[in-house]
Amino acid sequence: MLMGIKAADQIPDIADIFSAQQRIGDKIRTTPVVSDPQLNAEIGCELWLKCENLQHTGAFKFRGASNAVAILEEQGKHGDVATHSSGNHGAALALAASTNNRRAWVVMPENSIKPKVEAVHRNGGEIVFCAPNQQEREKGLAALVAKGCIPVPPYDHGHIISGQGTVVIEMSEQIPGLDIIITPVGGGGLISGAAIAARALIPGVNIIGAEPEGAADTALSLSQGRRVDQFAVDTIADGLRAIVGILNFEIIHNTVDEVITVSDEQIIEAMALIWQRFRMLVEPSSATVLAAILASPGRFSGQRVGAVISGGNVDLEHLPFTP
Amino acid sequence: MLMGIKAADQIPDIADIFSAQQRIGDKIRTTPVVSDPQLNAEIGCELWLKCENLQHTGAFKFRGASNAVAILEEQGKHGDVATHSSGNHGAALALAASTNNRRAWVVMPENSIKPKVEAVHRNGGEIVFCAPNQQEREKGLAALVAKGCIPVPPYDHGHIISGQGTVVIEMSEQIPGLDIIITPVGGGGLISGAAIAARALIPGVNIIGAEPEGAADTALSLSQGRRVDQFAVDTIADGLRAIVGILNFEIIHNTVDEVITVSDEQIIEAMALIWQRFRMLVEPSSATVLAAILASPGRFSGQRVGAVISGGNVDLEHLPFTP
Repeated sequence: MLMGIKAADQIPDIADIFSAQQRIGDKIRTTPVVSDPQLNAEIGCELWLKCENLQHTGAFKFRGASNAVAILEEQGKHGDVATHSSGNHGAALALAASTNNRRAWVVMPENSIKPKVEAVHRNGGEIVFCAPNQQEREKGLAALVAKGCIPVPPYDHGHIISGQGTVVIEMSEQIPGLDIIITPVGGGGLISGAAIAARALIPGVNIIGAEPEGAADTALSLSQGRRVDQFAVDTIADGLRAIVGILNFEIIHNTVDEVITVSDEQIIEAMALIWQRFRMLVEPSSATVLAAILASPGRFSGQRVGAVISGGNVDLEHLPFTP
Repeated sequence: MLMGIKAADQIPDIADIFSAQQRIGDKIRTTPVVSDPQLNAEIGCELWLKCENLQHTGAFKFRGASNAVAILEEQGKHGDVATHSSGNHGAALALAASTNNRRAWVVMPENSIKPKVEAVHRNGGEIVFCAPNQQEREKGLAALVAKGCIPVPPYDHGHIISGQGTVVIEMSEQIPGLDIIITPVGGGGLISGAAIAARALIPGVNIIGAEPEGAADTALSLSQGRRVDQFAVDTIADGLRAIVGILNFEIIHNTVDEVITVSDEQIIEAMALIWQRFRMLVEPSSATVLAAILASPGRFSGQRVGAVISGGNVDLEHLPFTP
């Protein structure tokens, strides 16, 4: 192991996130933040959206994937990489790998949405479809690793978490005086990296997760004080259907203040509102953050809130709201 | 007239555009610029999109409307304002007026798309529908002016042109070393303001307009050396159906290097490509700039190009491409 790079099964700290920023700074986009005074007046807080939907491959996932692949390169580990993904991590890894002269193999559930499948292909990745459940996703990945691929899992991995955490370095510079940071929660890669960075960089900030009721394994795990690894998932938020990772849950348990759950109806309403007010079409997963604010106005009242819009890979053929 | 504010029927200069920037700087969003290395490699130039689709009311129009209303305030001219608009200027004027405690009346063609009609209402504007042609639009506006409204026309107006020109002040700071600036051409408010600012701020820059073949009155006017005021308009680009204004044509004739025309098919293809690569759904008018680049690759080869994405007010119910 090179000096300064922790093993992937260790929990990163802020130094690892700053290292990630140096490593990937010229590969990623510094995404914009946007705010709307009219909407702020209506919802009673000062809301800033961090637009990772405008990141390369249309999601924050490119941060972590770029960091993980760059570390493999630094460590002299050559060869194909593999992962499982509902799409966004797959496309991100495909792009990170192809710009590093590698091939990426992506195990995707059969019910992955079409634009996400196309994005993996467009970025040079190879797809292996599987049944849409956690066991089959992990089985598919194990088979690729057995063939010699280097696994780059989507969230339960220190280098991925460090990469995702870079989004908060940018937010802390773009939006001074944040009171609350809120991100969607799926496997927990984004919120765990964001929480480590926020705790270190923004004094007194509250860190809140937004999770669909139909994939609320993290909220359940927090209420039980231990990670549940089974959950009957049913939500429109296709990017948040994974079970929270082991490293991720440990970080969330220790660092995140609260996880708010929202219904699919609330997610769809928030998605329509973001389209109306910001002319950004974001994926349902991203809309969970605004849904949580609308559902718990007292929690956010008068606060300066930074909300991560995690991705924009919407299936235009099956929009869930009537525009 | 207050010192330093030119009459609205005079051609503004760079000092007027800097004044506009000071006047509206705290009202508008500094919109982001985005670029995609993979797309750049494919199209053979370094393309930066200036995202006015993320401006308040989803279009650059809020710059000019804010400037015009702020000048009325400075001049002590109180009362309702009125305009004609296919939608974006109407919504922008409605917001600029309502935040200035005025009412805005908007003459809109009956075939205006639904989200643009809704945006005028949401921002507090009153709509008067008319037949979809230039004569009826101007007749409707004249009737409102006869009732005492102050006219704030959409493009043929010095204060509007100055406001739109502020977009290039931002671009010149955000993208050093621009070789080409390209914007859509409708009534000519955006390109005329952009051209005045670009000529003053960016040495040696080329200024190019993109116009739909089905509304190519500006290209025709340039080829004839005089402004044509009749054109049988037929294009999907609903924001570009107006005839070029008198002041606007004079500026374009003297300052713009070239206007490239593109077919509706090319516009739709470019709109789909922007969605695919940037996860931004932009209106057909905006896609003309990428369509022009794809149609004339030699003209842009190896150049650093700043393209204004003019707006994002798409009718999601009637998308012209299959995603």
